[in-house]
Amino acid sequence: MRIGIIGGGGVAQTLGTALIAKGHDVVIGIRQPSSAELAKDRSNARPLAEWVATTGGKVATFSDAARHGEVLINATSGQHSLEALHAAGAAHLAGKVLIDVANPLDFSKGMPPFVLAEFSGPTSLGEQVQAAFPQARVVKAFNTIAAAVMVTPSLVAGEHDLFIAGNDAQAKAVVTEIAKAFGWTGVVDLGDIVGARASESILPVWVRLWMTGGSPILNLKVARAA
Amino acid sequence: MRIGIIGGGGVAQTLGTALIAKGHDVVIGIRQPSSAELAKDRSNARPLAEWVATTGGKVATFSDAARHGEVLINATSGQHSLEALHAAGAAHLAGKVLIDVANPLDFSKGMPPFVLAEFSGPTSLGEQVQAAFPQARVVKAFNTIAAAVMVTPSLVAGEHDLFIAGNDAQAKAVVTEIAKAFGWTGVVDLGDIVGARASESILPVWVRLWMTGGSPILNLKVARAA
Repeated sequence: MRIGIIGGGGVAQTLGTALIAKGHDVVIGIRQPSSAELAKDRSNARPLAEWVATTGGKVATFSDAARHGEVLINATSGQHSLEALHAAGAAHLAGKVLIDVANPLDFSKGMPPFVLAEFSGPTSLGEQVQAAFPQARVVKAFNTIAAAVMVTPSLVAGEHDLFIAGNDAQAKAVVTEIAKAFGWTGVVDLGDIVGARASESILPVWVRLWMTGGSPILNLKVARAA
Repeated sequence: MRIGIIGGGGVAQTLGTALIAKGHDVVIGIRQPSSAELAKDRSNARPLAEWVATTGGKVATFSDAARHGEVLINATSGQHSLEALHAAGAAHLAGKVLIDVANPLDFSKGMPPFVLAEFSGPTSLGEQVQAAFPQARVVKAFNTIAAAVMVTPSLVAGEHDLFIAGNDAQAKAVVTEIAKAFGWTGVVDLGDIVGARASESILPVWVRLWMTGGSPILNLKVARAA
C-alpha cells in the first residue's frame, strides 16, 4: 500500500520503518525537504537522511507525501497538526484514510505536559481534524502509546489494548488490519470520532505512568464486567 | 474507624454502606440535613432517610461529618468540592486523611461530559483541594471507577487497578488498607498529588468505554514492559 506520513519526528520514523518492513511504499512529508533539513537531528529521532539510507523510504513535502498515500498518517505535534494538514492540502486528503496519531500536548510548562485547552473540553484534536477535512476518513489511533509499542506491541507484557475512533467503519477496518500486522490483538473501538476525546485524554495518564514507573513501554488494558 | 463523608449522593451512599459493613462508624455530611432534605430523592441515589434506616449510618452537616471523621472522603460533585470542603471547615480537615473521590466534570453540554478547564491543564481538582487545605493529607483515589466497583472490585473480570496519588505516604497506606478491605489487589501509586491530573483524566475514557460498551462496570489495568 502507498502510505504518506505527515511529520518527520520519532513517531513518523518508527511507523515508517515498520510499515516499510511490512512491504508498504512509504513517503514521509515535512515542511521543507532540503538536504540541509534532512541532515538535521530531529526531536527524539535521527536525521531523516539516515532514515532514508537505512530504510529505503522517501522524504518529500507535506503535499507530495499526502498525494502519494492511499493511507495517510498525521504524526505531527498536535498543536501544529491542522496547519501541517492544510499545507498537505485538503484535496490530497479527500476520500483517504487519515490515521491521526497526534496529541495536542503542551510541554511549555514542564513535565507532565497537559492537553491544550483549545483541543479539550467538549472537543478534541481528532474531531477538529475531521471537521477541517470533512472528506478525509479520520481514524484516531496509535496515539496512546510510545512509538516503539505502536509497531511492536509485544514489548508490553500480557494483554493490552489499542484504542481507535472514527466515523467510517471501513477506514477503521483498514487501520485494524495495519494494527494486526504489527501484532495487535486487542483493539478497542471507541465509536465515532468523538471517541478521540477519550483516547487523547489517556496521555496525561500515560505520561504519569512513565514518570512514576521509569519506562514509556507500557499500555492499558480495558477490563469489563465479570 | 470514624469516617466522615462529604456529600450524600450515590457515591457517598455506596462507600458509606460498604464502610459500615466493614465495621466503620460513618457519618455522611450534607449542606442542610433537615428531615425534608433527607426524604428527597438524590442524584443517582435513594433518599438519605432510607440509607440511614437500612445501614444505621448517620447524616449531619458538612461540618459535623468532617469533625466526626478520622478519615474523610470528598464525594461531592467536583465543581462544588472546594465550596463544600470550605463549609466543612479547614480546622476539621487538618491532619486528617482526605480521600478525594470527586471529578471536575461538566455535564452541561450533554454526554460525554468533559473535564472542566479550570481544573485541568497544568492543575487538577486534587491539587487544588490540597492547596486549599494544606494541613489535610489528600489522597486522590476511587475516582476512576463506578461506585459499585469501588467497593466490589470483583464485579470486573480479571486484573484491574485502583489509582492513588498524594503527597503523604502514610495517608496513601491508610487508603490502600481501605481498598484492600474492599478486595482491591492492584493499587497503582501515581506519586504525589500532581498524579491527580492523570487519574482525573481517566474520566473521559471511562465514560466513553461505558457509552460504547453499555455498562459502567469496567476498569483499566496497567500493563508494563515485558
